[in-house]
Amino acid sequence: MPIYKAPLEDVRFVLDEIVGLDKLSALPGYEDATPELVGQVLEEGAKLCEEVLFPLNQSGDGEGCHFENGEVRTPKGFKEAYSTYIEAGWQGLACDPAYGGQGLPKLVNIMLEEFICSANLSFGMYPGLSLGAYNALAMYGSDELKQRFLPKLVDGTWSGTMCLTEPHCGTDLGIIRTKAVPAEEGDPQGGYKITGTKIFISAGEHDLTENILHLVLARLPDAPAGTRGISLFLVPKFMPNADGTPGARNGVACGSIEHKMGIKASSTCVMNFEDATGWLVGEPHKGMRAMFVMMNAARLAVGIQGLGLAEVSYQNAVNYARERLQGRSLSGVKAPDKPADPIIVHPDVRKNLLTARAFTEGARALGALTAYHLDVAEKHADARTRRDADEFVQLMTPIVKALFTDIGFDSANIAVQVHGGHGFIWETGVEQYVRDARICQIYEGTNGIQALDLVGRKLPQDMGRLLRHFFHPVGRDIEAAMEKDELGEFVMPLAKAFAKLQQATALIAQKGLKDPEEAGAAASDYLRLFGLVALGWSWLTMVEKAQANLAAGEGNAAFYEAKIKTARFYMTKLLPQTNSLFITIAAGAKPLMDLEEAAF
Amino acid sequence: MPIYKAPLEDVRFVLDEIVGLDKLSALPGYEDATPELVGQVLEEGAKLCEEVLFPLNQSGDGEGCHFENGEVRTPKGFKEAYSTYIEAGWQGLACDPAYGGQGLPKLVNIMLEEFICSANLSFGMYPGLSLGAYNALAMYGSDELKQRFLPKLVDGTWSGTMCLTEPHCGTDLGIIRTKAVPAEEGDPQGGYKITGTKIFISAGEHDLTENILHLVLARLPDAPAGTRGISLFLVPKFMPNADGTPGARNGVACGSIEHKMGIKASSTCVMNFEDATGWLVGEPHKGMRAMFVMMNAARLAVGIQGLGLAEVSYQNAVNYARERLQGRSLSGVKAPDKPADPIIVHPDVRKNLLTARAFTEGARALGALTAYHLDVAEKHADARTRRDADEFVQLMTPIVKALFTDIGFDSANIAVQVHGGHGFIWETGVEQYVRDARICQIYEGTNGIQALDLVGRKLPQDMGRLLRHFFHPVGRDIEAAMEKDELGEFVMPLAKAFAKLQQATALIAQKGLKDPEEAGAAASDYLRLFGLVALGWSWLTMVEKAQANLAAGEGNAAFYEAKIKTARFYMTKLLPQTNSLFITIAAGAKPLMDLEEAAF
Repeated sequence: MPIYKAPLEDVRFVLDEIVGLDKLSALPGYEDATPELVGQVLEEGAKLCEEVLFPLNQSGDGEGCHFENGEVRTPKGFKEAYSTYIEAGWQGLACDPAYGGQGLPKLVNIMLEEFICSANLSFGMYPGLSLGAYNALAMYGSDELKQRFLPKLVDGTWSGTMCLTEPHCGTDLGIIRTKAVPAEEGDPQGGYKITGTKIFISAGEHDLTENILHLVLARLPDAPAGTRGISLFLVPKFMPNADGTPGARNGVACGSIEHKMGIKASSTCVMNFEDATGWLVGEPHKGMRAMFVMMNAARLAVGIQGLGLAEVSYQNAVNYARERLQGRSLSGVKAPDKPADPIIVHPDVRKNLLTARAFTEGARALGALTAYHLDVAEKHADARTRRDADEFVQLMTPIVKALFTDIGFDSANIAVQVHGGHGFIWETGVEQYVRDARICQIYEGTNGIQALDLVGRKLPQDMGRLLRHFFHPVGRDIEAAMEKDELGEFVMPLAKAFAKLQQATALIAQKGLKDPEEAGAAASDYLRLFGLVALGWSWLTMVEKAQANLAAGEGNAAFYEAKIKTARFYMTKLLPQTNSLFITIAAGAKPLMDLEEAAF
Repeated sequence: MPIYKAPLEDVRFVLDEIVGLDKLSALPGYEDATPELVGQVLEEGAKLCEEVLFPLNQSGDGEGCHFENGEVRTPKGFKEAYSTYIEAGWQGLACDPAYGGQGLPKLVNIMLEEFICSANLSFGMYPGLSLGAYNALAMYGSDELKQRFLPKLVDGTWSGTMCLTEPHCGTDLGIIRTKAVPAEEGDPQGGYKITGTKIFISAGEHDLTENILHLVLARLPDAPAGTRGISLFLVPKFMPNADGTPGARNGVACGSIEHKMGIKASSTCVMNFEDATGWLVGEPHKGMRAMFVMMNAARLAVGIQGLGLAEVSYQNAVNYARERLQGRSLSGVKAPDKPADPIIVHPDVRKNLLTARAFTEGARALGALTAYHLDVAEKHADARTRRDADEFVQLMTPIVKALFTDIGFDSANIAVQVHGGHGFIWETGVEQYVRDARICQIYEGTNGIQALDLVGRKLPQDMGRLLRHFFHPVGRDIEAAMEKDELGEFVMPLAKAFAKLQQATALIAQKGLKDPEEAGAAASDYLRLFGLVALGWSWLTMVEKAQANLAAGEGNAAFYEAKIKTARFYMTKLLPQTNSLFITIAAGAKPLMDLEEAAF
């Protein structure tokens, strides 16, 4: 049986000492987000995740969703858990109080999302999709649509979806075929009639809420070709009555659900729209802009899914490594009263555990920093500061999505490997994390697409201005750390890796100008190199805090000592991957492009 | 729907030009293994795998094995396929003609095993386990046991198992509890009575054969503690009658089967032995020696499973990348008549495909070379040559097992990634390869255990003599290649990587002497470094042959050109991982051992 405890101590460390909760509550509108309140919220959230959501994770995987007569039944206990979730107001935690939300910072919500994804990723998909729909509607919906629908999304009685993908197109949304035509004159509902088929629609149909709001990409009759001709529509499952209750069924139905490798308790639906009534969200043909609001938030959220799975995988790996007795320590018997030593004594097992740990804790710090910038971008009084923060988020989004989901998958595999043969058995519970984590590397844009977004869009944007929001603080922090003897062993490897990143950036910028395939060929390796340096930066910051606290005799010394040792592991055993990445980046596109298609 | 075609052209290239079939048929006893005969056998084997085994792979995964009243039902079609398999004599392909086998080289059989594992890994488990039992019995069984049981294993009417693992021990067999006591005087069957519980027994119970022969590790009453007190017993499911038919049921029964992540059509059984009659195989307390015969053969076989899954994954990834239209080439539209270009035009997709390809083809060449040495070790007229070949196999076994299974898993994941969201769907068929491949990194000794075997046993053995069987030829080949201008771009990166391997070896040998944890800490990275150099060596050999054939105007020019381009990809994009590996090896054990157990 798998275990899970929310990592409250580490989250508090990150919030209090790495990001600085005081800075957060200094933002206009977040005055109430005091360290005390945030602490209480996180503790309550931890309880919910440990006691309500986590116990349904494995049973949900075993049972899966069931489809019958157009309806989807979620696994046993999901309905009750969802009620508990929305009744306590979790859905509206970071939503606008104008629509019933609690108006807490996004950072707090994202920390909670980590817990949810650790506890039960499939469950988390339902509220997660609703929040995505809320964000798009809140930003681009008309006042009428917002008044009518946002309170339902905030209280969680209705849920949301994102309907992008079609059978023939996922990444390339420019070729979607779903159509929208203006409703006939005199149609009491007004709006548009939507017709088409969408696939891979998470939470497209389920039994958790009384209504479902689909945000659907479609083409208007006069739409230009490509992504510049896509519009966004809000299409409810049931047409809302004047009193806000769900009314008549709309022309949208679930055709089937997918049999998937993982997240089996999350319904993945084929959605058929046939003359379904929908209302335009935002301007005609500008749907991609609104969709990107959803998508960028969703990409960060998927990165956090990876983090959540990495954390729970790590916990289970450690737990087993402490319990399982097998073989003797290479440096002499450690548990003479037992038939064998616990496998945590073996260097290779420790290497596995520390890999998961160092990536997970580094990702948590980097994820929190990114989420903090989301809040600054929305709330800060100064426009320039808001813009800078937004650009930092834009830059980090593909990195958080791709790097963290790779970390989630790798950590899940580490948990399986540490369990040996038992890891392959369903009842043990860790192979589910591998299957669940696998989708995170794919949806919301595959990790390869994230890499292209980084090199093709974020890197050249505004003459490299986005990049400077990362390069400048990292460079400054490295320089400052160089002055401190006690940071030497940590900052030296980071300085080397950072130099490689700068060189690689210059190389790609220069070669990519002449030949975009050069940038494309380097993309994945570059994102990884960037991500490793970003985590190294997080670790440098954490080490500095830990050392300062130890010197001052403040806080939990064992916690800070573990931080320092984990940082040492990261710098000496993981960060050096940057060396090989730089070499393969420098090798260029030719070795990839030379082989004729027919010769594959 | 997944696809599979046996890679006959590449196998022929490896056999004819890398290993040299002429050398094989020059071995005493293999005179009949002419290139023509081997070619026919492989073509027939390819047909069997493509037409009989492959069509049952996905249905077998969907249906799984069923357990009821102590019996196991394999999925629909497996019984018929197994009959086809044994009736055509495939089970005895490489077995001794004295017991009804065809006496073909092990190399040929291993090439066939690759096809089987590509087509249907779960199916392949049943004959694979039988062959393991055959090998142990043929080497250590008494003449009586051999006469009585080997013909049944060779004709496939009976099958075999390896019963090692118990609930509390897998890697650490020294602590097994299963007991064997001499049968009472006057017991007509003689032998011993075995009592205990074994878990994770592949093919422990099934409906494919009329009898099952379990090879069971157990302790005799007077056994010394640890692995020096383990004996090996042959325990049949049904006691054989005098006429060779299965008779009365023995005291062994399947208690349950496991629900697993993958290889669902392979039964994984809990086997309960209660006063089961068994006969000693080999000497008392020397069971580990015989078990190692099975295990070493099984480790190579598991490596080949990884290769097989890598091949079929690659094929499906390429197939989809050619068909799927999405986005446009970065260097301009490639398919103007279509709404989008096939995704194989994108550099990052190509990087994925070429990674799978370069690893797969390199592994095939290295695997074949290792298998060839198996044959030399058994058949060569000269004792010293036999010993040297055996030592080469010993050295390469952990590398083939761990490296190839990592390649299998990574390639399966590449296939999923290239398929995008469709890869996550069961019906597409590629996520099964990920789930199936996952066990290969675990069973027959986890890949971490393989690494320890390499650094702890194979590296120091006979003052490094095993190592020299690899280092000398590689060094010679690199030196010779340095003389040829046309090999320069390939041999230079290999020479660098080889130098790193030599340095790392010296480092580990030196540090490991003082502190065995230093060797343990380096083990996994060292195995990977070693494996990457070994594949680089294979690629250098392949490039040389391809260039020579092109220069001579012989053979399929497109095939040889693709070899050269794939080699270039390997040397510039994969082999450089050795740089980071060397750095992390040199960082030593301290970063792994410093963190106290309680702090994890």
